[in-house]
Amino acid sequence: MSKSIFYHAGCPVCISAEQDILNLINPSDVEVVNFADDKSRINEAEKTGVKSVPALVTPNGNVLHINFGASMEDVKG
Amino acid sequence: MSKSIFYHAGCPVCISAEQDILNLINPSDVEVVNFADDKSRINEAEKTGVKSVPALVTPNGNVLHINFGASMEDVKG
Repeated sequence: MSKSIFYHAGCPVCISAEQDILNLINPSDVEVVNFADDKSRINEAEKTGVKSVPALVTPNGNVLHINFGASMEDVKG
Repeated sequence: MSKSIFYHAGCPVCISAEQDILNLINPSDVEVVNFADDKSRINEAEKTGVKSVPALVTPNGNVLHINFGASMEDVKG
């Protein structure tokens, strides 16, 4: 199985969801991307369909928007 | 680890998210509750903090609202 990607931006909602996801899914199956550390991944995330963070992109390319921390517009701003 | 509970209501967004979640998490670790089949679980879900479906309640009681299928008001209506 290829990896899922968990995108977030360091917000409290994001951190809480990250902990939950890494408890539920084998951490070695998830790449965690924090836009606060790596803004260069924002474009890739938007192309995948990520509208807000935190979001989990599954290996088959589906986007699961989990709760709501911030819109991608806020992330870019 | 105790089980997570995935609540949904049979809507297309719910079914898609259910497939994704059951691909990511060991299905034996997740109880799937469809309100269309069992309305008696609605009250329990609301008490846990579920505001919309699909939603995943983690073993530690956190609610992850995943995408948006329907509000609990719609589910009850």
